[in-house]
Amino acid sequence: MSAVDVGIGLLGYGTVGSSVHRLLVESGDEIERATGHRLRVVKALIRDKRKERPFPAGDGVLTGDFAELRDDPRITVVAEVMGGLDPAGGYVRELLRAGKPVVSANKQLVAREGSELFAIASEAGVQLRFEASVCAAIPVVKVLRESLVVSNVHRVLGIVNGTTNFILSRMEAGGSYADALAEAQALGYAEVYPNDDVTGADAAAKMAILATVAFGSRVGLGDVECRGITELEPAHVSAAAELGMAVKLVGIATLADGAVDVRVQPAFVDRAHALATVDGAFNAVMLQGDSIREITLEGPGAGGIETASAVVADLVSVVGTAGTGFLQNDACWRELPRLDRGAWRSPFYLHLEVADRPGVLAHVTSRLAANEISVAQLVQHLREGEATLDLILHEAHAGDVHEAAAQMATFPEVLRRPFLAPVITERPL
Amino acid sequence: MSAVDVGIGLLGYGTVGSSVHRLLVESGDEIERATGHRLRVVKALIRDKRKERPFPAGDGVLTGDFAELRDDPRITVVAEVMGGLDPAGGYVRELLRAGKPVVSANKQLVAREGSELFAIASEAGVQLRFEASVCAAIPVVKVLRESLVVSNVHRVLGIVNGTTNFILSRMEAGGSYADALAEAQALGYAEVYPNDDVTGADAAAKMAILATVAFGSRVGLGDVECRGITELEPAHVSAAAELGMAVKLVGIATLADGAVDVRVQPAFVDRAHALATVDGAFNAVMLQGDSIREITLEGPGAGGIETASAVVADLVSVVGTAGTGFLQNDACWRELPRLDRGAWRSPFYLHLEVADRPGVLAHVTSRLAANEISVAQLVQHLREGEATLDLILHEAHAGDVHEAAAQMATFPEVLRRPFLAPVITERPL
Repeated sequence: MSAVDVGIGLLGYGTVGSSVHRLLVESGDEIERATGHRLRVVKALIRDKRKERPFPAGDGVLTGDFAELRDDPRITVVAEVMGGLDPAGGYVRELLRAGKPVVSANKQLVAREGSELFAIASEAGVQLRFEASVCAAIPVVKVLRESLVVSNVHRVLGIVNGTTNFILSRMEAGGSYADALAEAQALGYAEVYPNDDVTGADAAAKMAILATVAFGSRVGLGDVECRGITELEPAHVSAAAELGMAVKLVGIATLADGAVDVRVQPAFVDRAHALATVDGAFNAVMLQGDSIREITLEGPGAGGIETASAVVADLVSVVGTAGTGFLQNDACWRELPRLDRGAWRSPFYLHLEVADRPGVLAHVTSRLAANEISVAQLVQHLREGEATLDLILHEAHAGDVHEAAAQMATFPEVLRRPFLAPVITERPL
Repeated sequence: MSAVDVGIGLLGYGTVGSSVHRLLVESGDEIERATGHRLRVVKALIRDKRKERPFPAGDGVLTGDFAELRDDPRITVVAEVMGGLDPAGGYVRELLRAGKPVVSANKQLVAREGSELFAIASEAGVQLRFEASVCAAIPVVKVLRESLVVSNVHRVLGIVNGTTNFILSRMEAGGSYADALAEAQALGYAEVYPNDDVTGADAAAKMAILATVAFGSRVGLGDVECRGITELEPAHVSAAAELGMAVKLVGIATLADGAVDVRVQPAFVDRAHALATVDGAFNAVMLQGDSIREITLEGPGAGGIETASAVVADLVSVVGTAGTGFLQNDACWRELPRLDRGAWRSPFYLHLEVADRPGVLAHVTSRLAANEISVAQLVQHLREGEATLDLILHEAHAGDVHEAAAQMATFPEVLRRPFLAPVITERPL
């Protein structure tokens, strides 16, 4: 290698890893112009040497032996693109302790073991970057860290799971949940076992990372209140359309009165809101803060080349950034309390299926009034002796709204469990 | 100052300058956590010492003498927040030559004199950052430079002027151009003399900077083909609504077949497109590239505190970035040719006002066919013996479409000059 070369190690050489190698080769000139350095993959750790690779590594690059990569003196930075907690976590720890900066695309690793990993990185005085672990090519970590450092970001709204967004877009166009899921699987958006997507677990890991970065206080996976899209029915989606809204699986992280609340759940998004046009497998993150009002970033939230692009951006940032510890690590510097479950405030959508008989509406609305919840919009439909009520409720404490819904569930004329979702809008309701 | 302090000089201490000072004071802890440094304003150059300041500077900070700031050994970085070309340009040159990194919020200075200023910065080996010069708090320069360095960005779509976007939003809601402009002025969005806004000149300067950064080839102000919103009429806006679109002043920068095309003009944006929901005084920039598909950034594109936030982000980046010349300067490294005027391709909207007599439609459509332009949608309205025709045309060379429109303008039954605007959509037409 020439004097300006920087040796890169890859943990993993699958779709993302080989794309990182390809981008480093094909965009070598761009990177050298930007940083003064040529980044070259010198070792890549793999499990199976005989497997065919989408972009071939050079001679002697692939190895099955982690020690060979760890001990290669040419390697300045390592990208972890193998996924999983074990052995990836152990490898990253060893590398950081050995003073090697690491770039990780591993959402589960960062969300679950971030606390320990960043402590090791700080102690060793090296960088651990993780842009690719959240929303692939959308540079939300860099923007939060470096551009919005004085913005006091107090709210993060995110559509951070492409599979569920695709399914909801299809349901909006009239498809059933099952058909939309099958189509997502056929197109490769959804895994054969899409459990982590449809339950919201995948989105929860991303929101935990984003909230941690935005608020500077560790938010663990267990701190995220999470509800997926499995309960959603075509009736909710069509009610949303009728109300001028779209149903989206939205992550909402809030810092209010010194406490943190992070949740993932289906939400009704006003058609005029920037998040409503996020269609198909795209992701979007809206950051609200004091000196910026709000900044929204939208783009592809998954994909091999998109993830590789974020890994390379992090490699470039490590190489181009001073070694003094600038902005690179997860900068938790305080411990904020969690907001009480019911204290979170929002306008809500409430869907009720009731028997079509006199007094039902009065019964429902007086229950809301008793809980000090007022109604902004109401749509009633009749169908074969049953009625559906779709209500938009003015902002209220989530606890009060859930309590009112739980009470209604016990009414004899309420036929099914009420469905609740927060409403996201910038219009007065 | 303590050992970790970094002295900041301000050229100008008006709305933006005093907001920079305020953010540095109020967010001092955040910045120190991120960079290890405390940034302090030690000198601020002003013209009138007696003027009242929104956030007071400390004792001995304000000065009317540039030499005092230039020669202050405590000053490590300078923010130029005074605006105008002269004397700002001369000051920036002197500071760069003296080896001081500069952060500028001055769009006109960067767009007009960037070529010379960046050459001086490179020669001196110091950074010249300019995030605040384009779209205030939206971190599009950092994202292009640092996150999308390997993305081969080939198209930039931007709503980069808040005044015109506000006026168009109001016209969409039914107001006249004159009323909307008056309201924008009353709210402080539009200047008393909003010429640069409504002619597109302000947007053209921003698009020149963005295209330069995105494509790595200098795009001067004179290279931007520019048309404002002054010709727009309520009829065009309501036709857009009828066609499921919104009229926006859009900047479009394209790199195709090794040539660059940059233009600012009213465009018809499909309601399902991410740019269609950019309302009021907000800005948005969509970046399309090989490995990212598209990434959209949206936020407030103007305002004192928003601009100051971007200035502080640049100061933080200068302090936190290695002095080796990483990613900081405008990295023009090639000279791309400009695309021929008529070679640019797009779908188009065409508005015609014609006499209501037999054969008009056939005359118009056969002229389009003769120019090999096909019609995707057509809406006709009759009003007191006149007809309006609103057409959406399939993608074609702009030169052919303009030629066809020019020919139609000579038809005796065409009553007024035809109106043309490109259409922006991701749907097949």
